Amino acid sequence: MLSRQEVAAARERAADALARAGIALTEAEVGAIEVADFGLSHLDEIGLQLVVYVNTERVCAKELVLFPRQLCPEHRHPPFDGTPGKEETFRCRAGVVFLYSEGHPTARPAARVPSDGVFTVWHETVLEPGEQYTIPPDTLHWFQAGDEGAVVSEFSTQSRDDLDVFSDPRIRRATLEVDG
Amino acid sequence: MLSRQEVAAARERAADALARAGIALTEAEVGAIEVADFGLSHLDEIGLQLVVYVNTERVCAKELVLFPRQLCPEHRHPPFDGTPGKEETFRCRAGVVFLYSEGHPTARPAARVPSDGVFTVWHETVLEPGEQYTIPPDTLHWFQAGDEGAVVSEFSTQSRDDLDVFSDPRIRRATLEVDG
Repeated sequence: MLSRQEVAAARERAADALARAGIALTEAEVGAIEVADFGLSHLDEIGLQLVVYVNTERVCAKELVLFPRQLCPEHRHPPFDGTPGKEETFRCRAGVVFLYSEGHPTARPAARVPSDGVFTVWHETVLEPGEQYTIPPDTLHWFQAGDEGAVVSEFSTQSRDDLDVFSDPRIRRATLEVDG
Repeated sequence: MLSRQEVAAARERAADALARAGIALTEAEVGAIEVADFGLSHLDEIGLQLVVYVNTERVCAKELVLFPRQLCPEHRHPPFDGTPGKEETFRCRAGVVFLYSEGHPTARPAARVPSDGVFTVWHETVLEPGEQYTIPPDTLHWFQAGDEGAVVSEFSTQSRDDLDVFSDPRIRRATLEVDG
């Protein structure tokens, strides 16, 4: 759990990062920035800040903000309702992102992970501003920002966060939307 | 038709507008900016510059650049292959966009259109940076930038430009990708 103060501070930092990246938000959007600690209460290490632009049955688009070295833990988007599951493209807008997915493990990965975490896929793609990568449905992936943090656009099919399958059994996706 | 020089000049202007909006492109993306004159050879009046980030069977994301007062002519995205047709969200990133779709006509619309054009829907939505609007499938719409031009992100289902239905019978969608 995060305190109300921690959530407010993270929203402000995320709004600042988006403004520095030249991304305009409405006042309502700033107030609705989602702060996710994945139930682990170590937001600066494992967490994510999100602005959801649109999420219909067919299309979803978001802006993701990662603080310096903050990481989004390993997960996949399983099939549901007759669909193959969420397909998503990550496009780096500012900073650097180290993205890991299924494939040949990278020898000297740039990410630094907590020793008690669960990370099983290590095929690294480094995304700098203007670079992007598409994750197929039902494919394990996780990512971490570099030392300056990052802003990443996500273009995808419908987001159903409640269906995400995390590799670390401690993570409860239901706790993602924390506003305590 | 546009000359090779006109296409190159429009690409350069569009890349400049994107850079001013803080949007990073790779060199390959700059070279592949699509310049659309809709077959009418009046690019500054009726035209569009596009960067297609991703266009799979399920998801599409693009950046649209409009020069000052440049307009994208009226069209709709019809059903195909058992889908309801393209659903798209326009999000203004820089400048101002006057967007028109089906609904009660706006009394004093801000757009200025050529007298020989075909524009049948006049329900106006003005989008400033950070504002967005979703066009349902198979719904007539068109848009024009304000005096400073505009950069607009488009989040949608699959783009099938070849299926677009334009209100102006002079427009041939097949001529959109001009590189003469």
